[in-house]
Amino acid sequence: MDIYQHLKEIGVEMPELPKPVASYLPAVLFEHQIYASGQTGTQHQKLVYQGKLGAELTVEQGKASARLAALNCLAEIQAVLGDLNRVDRILRVTSYVASAAGFNQQPAVVEGASALLIEVFGEKGWHARTAIGVAELPSNAPVEIELIASLFT
Amino acid sequence: MDIYQHLKEIGVEMPELPKPVASYLPAVLFEHQIYASGQTGTQHQKLVYQGKLGAELTVEQGKASARLAALNCLAEIQAVLGDLNRVDRILRVTSYVASAAGFNQQPAVVEGASALLIEVFGEKGWHARTAIGVAELPSNAPVEIELIASLFT
Amino acid sequence: MDIYQHLKEIGVEMPELPKPVASYLPAVLFEHQIYASGQTGTQHQKLVYQGKLGAELTVEQGKASARLAALNCLAEIQAVLGDLNRVDRILRVTSYVASAAGFNQQPAVVEGASALLIEVFGEKGWHARTAIGVAELPSNAPVEIELIASLFT
Repeated sequence: MDIYQHLKEIGVEMPELPKPVASYLPAVLFEHQIYASGQTGTQHQKLVYQGKLGAELTVEQGKASARLAALNCLAEIQAVLGDLNRVDRILRVTSYVASAAGFNQQPAVVEGASALLIEVFGEKGWHARTAIGVAELPSNAPVEIELIASLFT
Repeated sequence: MDIYQHLKEIGVEMPELPKPVASYLPAVLFEHQIYASGQTGTQHQKLVYQGKLGAELTVEQGKASARLAALNCLAEIQAVLGDLNRVDRILRVTSYVASAAGFNQQPAVVEGASALLIEVFGEKGWHARTAIGVAELPSNAPVEIELIASLFT
Repeated sequence: MDIYQHLKEIGVEMPELPKPVASYLPAVLFEHQIYASGQTGTQHQKLVYQGKLGAELTVEQGKASARLAALNCLAEIQAVLGDLNRVDRILRVTSYVASAAGFNQQPAVVEGASALLIEVFGEKGWHARTAIGVAELPSNAPVEIELIASLFT
Protein backbone atom coordinates (compact mmCIF):
# COMPACT_ATOMS: atom_id res chain seq x y z
CA MET A 1 0.00 0.00 0.00
CA ASP A 2 1.12 3.54 -0.70
CA ILE A 3 2.41 5.07 2.52
CA TYR A 4 0.89 8.48 1.83
CA GLN A 5 -2.55 6.86 1.38
CA HIS A 6 -1.99 5.04 4.69
CA LEU A 7 -0.92 8.25 6.47
CA LYS A 8 -4.13 9.89 5.26
CA GLU A 9 -6.22 6.98 6.54
CA ILE A 10 -4.67 7.08 10.01
CA GLY A 11 -4.86 10.86 10.14
CA VAL A 12 -1.13 11.53 10.32
CA GLU A 13 0.10 14.58 8.45
CA MET A 14 3.72 14.67 7.39
CA PRO A 15 5.37 17.80 8.79
CA GLU A 16 7.50 20.15 6.76
CA LEU A 17 11.20 19.39 7.15
CA PRO A 18 12.70 21.16 10.17
CA LYS A 19 15.55 23.26 8.80
CA PRO A 20 18.95 22.04 9.99
CA VAL A 21 20.29 24.76 12.28
CA ALA A 22 23.90 24.11 11.36
CA SER A 23 26.37 22.18 9.19
CA TYR A 24 24.70 18.81 8.91
CA LEU A 25 22.29 16.92 6.69
CA PRO A 26 18.76 15.79 7.61
CA ALA A 27 19.73 12.20 6.83
CA VAL A 28 22.45 10.22 5.08
CA LEU A 29 21.91 7.12 2.97
CA PHE A 30 24.53 4.42 2.73
CA GLU A 31 23.84 1.23 0.85
CA HIS A 32 20.44 0.17 2.21
CA GLN A 33 20.53 2.01 5.52
CA ILE A 34 19.56 5.60 6.17
CA TYR A 35 20.70 7.52 9.23
CA ALA A 36 18.31 10.31 10.30
CA SER A 37 19.71 13.22 12.31
CA GLY A 38 18.46 13.82 15.86
CA GLN A 39 15.12 15.62 15.97
CA THR A 40 13.11 17.33 18.66
CA GLY A 41 9.35 17.91 18.99
CA THR A 42 9.03 20.93 16.77
CA GLN A 43 6.04 21.90 14.66
CA HIS A 44 6.45 24.66 12.07
CA GLN A 45 10.04 25.16 13.35
CA LYS A 46 8.91 25.78 16.96
CA LEU A 47 9.07 23.46 19.95
CA VAL A 48 5.58 22.55 21.16
CA TYR A 49 6.90 21.89 24.68
CA GLN A 50 10.04 23.04 26.44
CA GLY A 51 11.47 21.91 29.76
CA LYS A 52 12.36 18.71 31.59
CA LEU A 53 10.43 15.63 32.46
CA GLY A 54 10.08 15.36 36.20
CA ALA A 55 9.94 19.15 36.47
CA GLU A 56 7.92 21.37 34.09
CA LEU A 57 6.43 18.60 31.94
CA THR A 58 4.17 15.58 32.40
CA VAL A 59 4.79 12.16 30.88
CA GLU A 60 1.91 12.81 28.46
CA GLN A 61 3.56 16.01 27.25
CA GLY A 62 6.82 14.12 26.88
CA LYS A 63 5.09 11.41 24.83
CA ALA A 64 3.58 14.04 22.54
CA SER A 65 7.06 15.54 22.08
CA ALA A 66 8.55 12.13 21.28
CA ARG A 67 5.81 11.51 18.70
CA LEU A 68 6.52 14.80 16.96
CA ALA A 69 10.26 14.16 17.03
CA ALA A 70 9.80 10.76 15.39
CA LEU A 71 7.57 12.30 12.75
CA ASN A 72 10.27 14.90 12.07
CA CYS A 73 12.78 12.07 11.59
CA LEU A 74 10.47 10.66 8.91
CA ALA A 75 10.33 14.11 7.29
CA GLU A 76 14.13 14.05 7.18
CA ILE A 77 14.18 10.66 5.52
CA GLN A 78 11.52 11.74 3.03
CA ALA A 79 13.56 14.84 2.17
CA VAL A 80 16.60 12.75 1.33
CA LEU A 81 14.90 9.80 -0.39
CA GLY A 82 12.24 11.84 -2.16
CA ASP A 83 9.64 9.17 -1.37
CA LEU A 84 8.90 7.52 1.99
CA ASN A 85 7.67 4.43 0.14
CA ARG A 86 11.30 3.45 -0.31
CA VAL A 87 11.60 2.70 3.43
CA ASP A 88 11.30 -0.98 4.24
CA ARG A 89 11.53 -0.90 8.03
CA ILE A 90 12.73 0.94 11.12
CA LEU A 91 15.86 -0.67 12.52
CA ARG A 92 16.82 1.29 15.63
CA VAL A 93 15.62 4.26 17.63
CA THR A 94 17.86 6.08 20.11
CA SER A 95 15.95 8.43 22.39
CA TYR A 96 17.15 11.08 24.80
CA VAL A 97 14.80 12.45 27.44
CA ALA A 98 15.72 15.68 29.30
CA SER A 99 15.28 14.47 32.87
CA ALA A 100 15.14 16.31 36.18
CA ALA A 101 16.77 14.55 39.16
CA GLY A 102 14.82 11.45 40.10
CA PHE A 103 12.84 11.10 36.86
CA ASN A 104 13.16 7.48 35.71
CA GLN A 105 10.22 6.88 33.37
CA GLN A 106 12.12 7.47 30.13
CA PRO A 107 10.58 4.36 28.48
CA ALA A 108 7.04 5.69 29.05
CA VAL A 109 7.99 8.95 27.33
CA VAL A 110 9.72 7.33 24.38
CA GLU A 111 6.65 5.17 23.82
CA GLY A 112 5.22 8.21 22.00
CA ALA A 113 7.86 7.76 19.28
CA SER A 114 7.61 3.98 19.11
CA ALA A 115 3.80 4.05 18.85
CA LEU A 116 3.95 6.54 15.96
CA LEU A 117 6.44 4.42 14.04
CA ILE A 118 4.26 1.33 14.49
CA GLU A 119 1.15 3.24 13.38
CA VAL A 120 2.96 4.34 10.24
CA PHE A 121 4.85 1.18 9.28
CA GLY A 122 2.86 -1.57 11.04
CA GLU A 123 4.95 -4.70 11.76
CA LYS A 124 7.89 -3.03 10.09
CA GLY A 125 7.72 -0.12 12.49
CA TRP A 126 8.94 -2.31 15.36
CA HIS A 127 12.55 -1.49 16.20
CA ALA A 128 15.45 -1.95 18.58
CA ARG A 129 15.41 0.91 21.08
CA THR A 130 17.50 2.70 23.65
CA ALA A 131 16.00 5.23 26.08
CA ILE A 132 18.18 7.35 28.32
CA GLY A 133 17.77 10.44 30.49
CA VAL A 134 20.02 13.37 29.70
CA ALA A 135 20.91 16.64 31.40
CA GLU A 136 19.96 19.16 28.71
CA LEU A 137 18.83 19.21 25.09
CA PRO A 138 19.10 21.88 22.38
CA SER A 139 16.73 24.84 22.89
CA ASN A 140 15.44 23.23 26.11
CA ALA A 141 13.63 20.47 24.17
CA PRO A 142 12.24 17.68 26.36
CA VAL A 143 12.99 14.83 23.93
CA GLU A 144 15.38 14.12 21.08
CA ILE A 145 15.01 11.11 18.76
CA GLU A 146 17.35 9.68 16.17
CA LEU A 147 16.77 6.58 14.08
CA ILE A 148 18.13 4.23 11.47
CA ALA A 149 15.83 2.76 8.81
CA SER A 150 16.42 0.25 6.04
CA LEU A 151 15.36 0.55 2.42
CA PHE A 152 13.89 -2.03 0.11
CA THR A 153 16.79 -3.76 -1.62
CA MET B 1 34.17 -23.91 19.16
CA ASP B 2 30.53 -23.95 20.22
CA ILE B 3 29.82 -20.78 22.15
CA TYR B 4 27.59 -22.53 24.69
CA GLN B 5 30.40 -24.96 25.47
CA HIS B 6 32.74 -21.99 25.89
CA LEU B 7 30.27 -20.18 28.16
CA LYS B 8 30.10 -23.26 30.36
CA GLU B 9 33.89 -23.48 30.54
CA ILE B 10 34.27 -19.85 31.60
CA GLY B 11 31.38 -20.14 34.06
CA VAL B 12 29.09 -17.62 32.37
CA GLU B 13 25.39 -18.45 32.45
CA MET B 14 23.18 -16.88 29.79
CA PRO B 15 20.36 -14.96 31.47
CA GLU B 16 16.73 -15.29 30.51
CA LEU B 17 15.67 -12.53 28.11
CA PRO B 18 14.57 -9.39 29.96
CA LYS B 19 11.02 -8.71 28.80
CA PRO B 20 10.75 -5.51 26.75
CA VAL B 21 8.72 -3.10 28.87
CA ALA B 22 7.17 -1.37 25.87
CA SER B 23 6.75 -1.28 22.08
CA TYR B 24 10.16 -2.36 20.89
CA LEU B 25 12.07 -5.49 19.93
CA PRO B 26 15.01 -7.01 21.82
CA ALA B 27 17.14 -6.74 18.69
CA VAL B 28 16.79 -6.16 14.96
CA LEU B 29 18.81 -7.91 12.27
CA PHE B 30 19.61 -6.20 8.99
CA GLU B 31 21.85 -7.88 6.45
CA HIS B 32 24.83 -8.96 8.57
CA GLN B 33 24.47 -6.54 11.44
CA ILE B 34 22.30 -6.92 14.50
CA TYR B 35 21.28 -3.97 16.67
CA ALA B 36 20.58 -4.91 20.31
CA SER B 37 18.26 -2.67 22.34
CA GLY B 38 19.59 -0.85 25.39
CA GLN B 39 19.85 -3.06 28.47
CA THR B 40 20.39 -2.44 32.16
CA GLY B 41 21.88 -4.66 34.86
CA THR B 42 18.84 -6.78 35.62
CA GLN B 43 18.80 -10.36 36.78
CA HIS B 44 15.49 -12.25 36.73
CA GLN B 45 13.78 -8.98 35.66
CA LYS B 46 15.10 -7.04 38.67
CA LEU B 47 17.91 -4.51 38.85
CA VAL B 48 20.76 -5.79 41.01
CA TYR B 49 21.87 -2.22 41.80
CA GLN B 50 20.04 1.08 41.63
CA GLY B 51 21.39 4.60 41.95
CA LYS B 52 24.16 6.75 40.56
CA LEU B 53 27.87 6.37 40.32
CA GLY B 54 29.56 8.99 42.44
CA ALA B 55 26.68 8.84 44.91
CA GLU B 56 25.09 5.57 46.10
CA LEU B 57 27.27 3.16 44.13
CA THR B 58 30.93 2.25 43.90
CA VAL B 59 32.85 1.74 40.66
CA GLU B 60 32.88 -2.00 41.41
CA GLN B 61 29.09 -2.07 41.67
CA GLY B 62 28.88 -0.11 38.43
CA LYS B 63 31.19 -2.60 36.71
CA ALA B 64 29.01 -5.48 37.89
CA SER B 65 25.96 -3.67 36.49
CA ALA B 66 27.69 -3.09 33.16
CA ARG B 67 28.63 -6.77 32.96
CA LEU B 68 25.03 -7.85 33.54
CA ALA B 69 23.74 -5.31 31.02
CA ALA B 70 26.12 -6.62 28.34
CA LEU B 71 25.04 -10.18 29.11
CA ASN B 72 21.42 -9.11 28.70
CA CYS B 73 22.30 -7.66 25.29
CA LEU B 74 23.63 -11.09 24.32
CA ALA B 75 20.36 -12.64 25.55
CA GLU B 76 18.51 -10.25 23.24
CA ILE B 77 20.63 -11.25 20.28
CA GLN B 78 20.20 -14.92 21.09
CA ALA B 79 16.42 -14.47 21.28
CA VAL B 80 16.32 -12.97 17.79
CA LEU B 81 18.92 -15.17 16.09
CA GLY B 82 17.98 -18.39 17.86
CA ASP B 83 21.65 -19.30 18.22
CA LEU B 84 24.49 -17.14 19.53
CA ASN B 85 26.93 -19.14 17.40
CA ARG B 86 25.80 -17.04 14.44
CA VAL B 87 27.55 -13.98 15.91
CA ASP B 88 30.93 -13.31 14.34
CA ARG B 89 32.07 -10.29 16.34
CA ILE B 90 31.06 -7.31 18.44
CA LEU B 91 31.33 -4.10 16.43
CA ARG B 92 30.38 -1.26 18.75
CA VAL B 93 29.27 -0.71 22.34
CA THR B 94 27.60 2.50 23.49
CA SER B 95 27.43 2.83 27.25
CA TYR B 96 25.57 5.25 29.46
CA VAL B 97 26.54 5.62 33.12
CA ALA B 98 24.17 7.42 35.51
CA SER B 99 26.58 9.91 37.04
CA ALA B 100 26.32 12.20 40.04
CA ALA B 101 27.98 15.62 39.68
CA GLY B 102 31.74 15.27 39.51
CA PHE B 103 31.87 11.56 38.65
CA ASN B 104 34.19 11.15 35.68
CA GLN B 105 35.28 7.51 35.74
CA GLN B 106 32.76 6.25 33.17
CA PRO B 107 35.42 4.22 31.31
CA ALA B 108 36.28 2.26 34.47
CA VAL B 109 32.61 1.36 34.94
CA VAL B 110 32.04 0.35 31.32
CA GLU B 111 35.06 -1.92 31.52
CA GLY B 112 32.69 -4.42 33.14
CA ALA B 113 30.82 -4.75 29.86
CA SER B 114 33.92 -4.79 27.65
CA ALA B 115 35.62 -7.45 29.75
CA LEU B 116 32.55 -9.71 29.58
CA LEU B 117 32.36 -9.41 25.79
CA ILE B 118 36.05 -10.27 25.47
CA GLU B 119 35.66 -13.26 27.81
CA VAL B 120 32.80 -14.54 25.68
CA PHE B 121 34.08 -13.82 22.16
CA GLY B 122 37.86 -13.61 22.67
CA GLU B 123 39.61 -11.51 19.97
CA LYS B 124 36.26 -10.96 18.32
CA GLY B 125 34.82 -9.44 21.47
CA TRP B 126 37.00 -6.33 21.06
CA HIS B 127 34.89 -3.40 19.90
CA ALA B 128 34.66 0.31 19.26
CA ARG B 129 33.27 1.99 22.37
CA THR B 130 31.72 5.19 23.64
CA ALA B 131 31.25 5.87 27.36
CA ILE B 132 29.28 8.83 28.60
CA GLY B 133 27.76 9.99 31.88
CA VAL B 134 24.03 10.67 31.88
CA ALA B 135 21.58 12.32 34.24
CA GLU B 136 19.09 9.50 34.82
CA LEU B 137 18.35 6.03 33.49
CA PRO B 138 15.13 3.98 33.42
CA SER B 139 14.10 2.61 36.86
CA ASN B 140 17.13 4.31 38.41
CA ALA B 141 19.54 1.86 36.76
CA PRO B 142 23.22 2.80 37.12
CA VAL B 143 24.28 1.64 33.65
CA GLU B 144 22.70 1.08 30.24
CA ILE B 145 24.49 -0.71 27.39
CA GLU B 146 23.59 -1.07 23.74
CA LEU B 147 25.62 -2.82 21.08
CA ILE B 148 25.94 -3.74 17.44
CA ALA B 149 27.30 -7.14 16.44
CA SER B 150 28.06 -8.70 13.08
CA LEU B 151 27.07 -12.16 11.88
CA PHE B 152 29.05 -14.68 9.91
CA THR B 153 28.44 -13.97 6.23
CA MET C 1 43.35 14.40 -4.39
CA ASP C 2 45.52 12.81 -1.72
CA ILE C 3 44.00 13.60 1.66
CA TYR C 4 47.37 14.18 3.33
CA GLN C 5 48.24 16.76 0.69
CA HIS C 6 44.86 18.42 1.30
CA LEU C 7 45.40 18.40 5.09
CA LYS C 8 48.73 20.15 4.57
CA GLU C 9 47.11 22.78 2.34
CA ILE C 10 44.39 23.59 4.87
CA GLY C 11 46.86 23.58 7.73
CA VAL C 12 45.39 20.64 9.63
CA GLU C 13 47.87 18.35 11.34
CA MET C 14 46.77 14.80 12.08
CA PRO C 15 47.19 14.11 15.80
CA GLU C 16 48.88 11.04 17.20
CA LEU C 17 46.35 8.36 18.12
CA PRO C 18 45.02 8.85 21.66
CA LYS C 19 45.81 5.62 23.52
CA PRO C 20 42.66 3.68 24.40
CA VAL C 21 42.43 3.80 28.20
CA ALA C 22 40.78 0.40 28.48
CA SER C 23 39.59 -2.75 26.67
CA TYR C 24 38.38 -1.36 23.37
CA LEU C 25 39.61 -0.63 19.86
CA PRO C 26 40.06 2.81 18.29
CA ALA C 27 37.70 1.81 15.48
CA VAL C 28 36.12 -1.28 13.96
CA LEU C 29 35.60 -1.89 10.27
CA PHE C 30 32.70 -3.97 9.00
CA GLU C 31 32.05 -4.31 5.31
CA HIS C 32 32.20 -0.70 4.09
CA GLN C 33 31.45 1.08 7.33
CA ILE C 34 33.87 2.01 10.07
CA TYR C 35 32.78 2.77 13.61
CA ALA C 36 35.13 5.14 15.47
CA SER C 37 35.19 5.03 19.28
CA GLY C 38 34.13 8.08 21.27
CA GLN C 39 36.86 10.71 21.51
CA THR C 40 37.40 13.82 23.61
CA GLY C 41 39.38 16.98 22.92
CA THR C 42 42.81 15.72 23.85
CA GLN C 43 46.12 16.80 22.38
CA HIS C 44 49.24 14.75 23.17
CA GLN C 45 47.07 12.62 25.51
CA LYS C 46 45.92 15.61 27.57
CA LEU C 47 42.58 17.42 27.52
CA VAL C 48 42.98 20.98 26.29
CA TYR C 49 39.85 22.06 28.20
CA GLN C 50 38.05 20.53 31.17
CA GLY C 51 34.68 21.42 32.63
CA LYS C 52 31.12 22.00 31.54
CA LEU C 53 29.54 24.29 29.00
CA GLY C 54 27.35 26.80 30.76
CA ALA C 55 29.72 26.81 33.72
CA GLU C 56 33.54 26.88 33.38
CA LEU C 57 33.72 26.99 29.59
CA THR C 58 32.59 29.26 26.76
CA VAL C 59 30.94 28.09 23.55
CA GLU C 60 34.19 28.92 21.71
CA GLN C 61 36.18 26.65 24.03
CA GLY C 62 33.56 23.93 23.51
CA LYS C 63 33.85 24.29 19.74
CA ALA C 64 37.62 23.97 19.94
CA SER C 65 37.17 20.80 22.03
CA ALA C 66 34.69 19.37 19.52
CA ARG C 67 37.12 20.07 16.68
CA LEU C 68 39.95 18.24 18.45
CA ALA C 69 37.65 15.33 19.31
CA ALA C 70 36.60 14.94 15.67
CA LEU C 71 40.24 15.05 14.60
CA ASN C 72 41.02 12.32 17.12
CA CYS C 73 38.24 10.21 15.59
CA LEU C 74 40.01 10.57 12.24
CA ALA C 75 43.25 9.49 13.90
CA GLU C 76 41.43 6.37 15.12
CA ILE C 77 40.17 5.57 11.65
CA GLN C 78 43.62 6.15 10.17
CA ALA C 79 45.15 3.82 12.75
CA VAL C 80 42.79 1.01 11.77
CA LEU C 81 42.71 1.54 8.00
CA GLY C 82 46.36 2.49 7.63
CA ASP C 83 45.43 5.20 5.13
CA LEU C 84 42.76 7.91 5.49
CA ASN C 85 42.43 8.01 1.69
CA ARG C 86 40.27 4.89 1.97
CA VAL C 87 37.46 6.93 3.58
CA ASP C 88 34.73 7.91 1.14
CA ARG C 89 32.47 9.98 3.37
CA ILE C 90 31.30 10.71 6.89
CA LEU C 91 27.90 9.14 7.56
CA ARG C 92 26.91 10.10 11.07
CA VAL C 93 28.25 12.05 14.04
CA THR C 94 26.90 11.62 17.56
CA SER C 95 28.04 14.33 19.93
CA TYR C 96 27.77 14.65 23.68
CA VAL C 97 28.28 18.01 25.36
CA ALA C 98 28.83 18.16 29.15
CA SER C 99 26.18 20.73 30.07
CA ALA C 100 25.51 22.69 33.24
CA ALA C 101 21.85 23.26 34.12
CA GLY C 102 20.24 25.61 31.61
CA PHE C 103 22.85 25.28 28.86
CA ASN C 104 21.02 24.56 25.61
CA GLN C 105 23.43 25.56 22.84
CA GLN C 106 24.76 22.07 22.15
CA PRO C 107 24.45 22.54 18.35
CA ALA C 108 26.70 25.61 18.43
CA VAL C 109 29.37 23.62 20.29
CA VAL C 110 29.19 20.59 18.03
CA GLU C 111 29.61 22.85 15.02
CA GLY C 112 33.33 22.70 15.81
CA ALA C 113 33.35 19.01 14.88
CA SER C 114 31.11 19.37 11.83
CA ALA C 115 33.15 22.24 10.42
CA LEU C 116 36.39 20.25 10.75
CA LEU C 117 34.92 17.25 8.95
CA ILE C 118 33.70 19.47 6.11
CA GLU C 119 37.12 21.19 5.86
CA VAL C 120 38.78 17.80 5.58
CA PHE C 121 36.35 15.92 3.32
CA GLY C 122 34.51 18.74 1.52
CA GLU C 123 31.04 17.72 0.26
CA LYS C 124 31.66 14.25 1.63
CA GLY C 125 32.23 15.59 5.12
CA TRP C 126 28.53 16.49 5.47
CA HIS C 127 26.82 14.05 7.81
CA ALA C 128 23.73 13.18 9.81
CA ARG C 129 24.16 14.51 13.34
CA THR C 130 22.81 14.24 16.84
CA ALA C 131 23.78 16.71 19.58
CA ILE C 132 22.80 16.17 23.18
CA GLY C 133 23.73 17.59 26.57
CA VAL C 134 25.02 15.11 29.14
CA ALA C 135 25.71 15.20 32.86
CA GLU C 136 29.38 14.19 32.94
CA LEU C 137 32.06 12.93 30.58
CA PRO C 138 35.24 10.92 31.18
CA SER C 139 38.03 12.94 32.88
CA ASN C 140 35.74 15.98 32.99
CA ALA C 141 35.95 16.46 29.21
CA PRO C 142 33.54 19.06 27.83
CA VAL C 143 32.73 17.21 24.59
CA GLU C 144 32.76 13.64 23.30
CA ILE C 145 32.35 12.76 19.62
CA GLU C 146 31.80 9.43 17.91
CA LEU C 147 31.28 8.85 14.23
CA ILE C 148 30.59 6.39 11.46
CA ALA C 149 32.31 6.73 8.08
CA SER C 150 32.02 4.79 4.85
CA LEU C 151 34.83 3.46 2.71
CA PHE C 152 35.21 3.42 -1.04
CA THR C 153 33.65 0.20 -2.31
